[in-house]
Amino acid sequence: MTVAVLCAALGDPTRAAMVERLSRGPASISELAAPHAMTLTAARKHVGVLVDAGWVERRKRGRVVTCRLRPEPFGELEGWLTDRRAFWTSALGRLGAVLDEEQP
Amino acid sequence: MTVAVLCAALGDPTRAAMVERLSRGPASISELAAPHAMTLTAARKHVGVLVDAGWVERRKRGRVVTCRLRPEPFGELEGWLTDRRAFWTSALGRLGAVLDEEQP
Repeated sequence: MTVAVLCAALGDPTRAAMVERLSRGPASISELAAPHAMTLTAARKHVGVLVDAGWVERRKRGRVVTCRLRPEPFGELEGWLTDRRAFWTSALGRLGAVLDEEQP
Repeated sequence: MTVAVLCAALGDPTRAAMVERLSRGPASISELAAPHAMTLTAARKHVGVLVDAGWVERRKRGRVVTCRLRPEPFGELEGWLTDRRAFWTSALGRLGAVLDEEQP
């Protein structure tokens, strides 16, 4: 997944809260819906966006759908942020060196 | 900023690419627009979203607006991901322990 796709899925307060909830363990759709005063249909749609982006996987046992986090997106997004930050820190370092050279 | 606000700003391929570009050093609006075949007006709007979310700061020198990354969002988002991943790993650990206990 691209960073934009991963972030677009998290870029909604309800979905970010669902990922927070799932980080404490698997949950059913109705457990995910409960804190948000939303319909199950609305909760299913949000979960669908998280599934499509790779954050969540669904498993059905009987009539209950259990959702859990997938590990991959955490690594992907953390890696992207770390790499960008490293680039940027070294770019700042080079800028600092140039400014130092320009001083009398 | 909340994670949802930070992610909503990155949740667009053009804006994610602009942050990638800025991680290699400061750039003007026209430099940011160049790889995307977009108008300066469209580029300014994307930059405005990144500024509002805290990813980018703008500085004006004469007629040129220079954009650069701000460090804070990297720390915020990395911290959130690390904490969620830690929660989730320990939740998995607890689940594993429960499963082990249930085995004969």
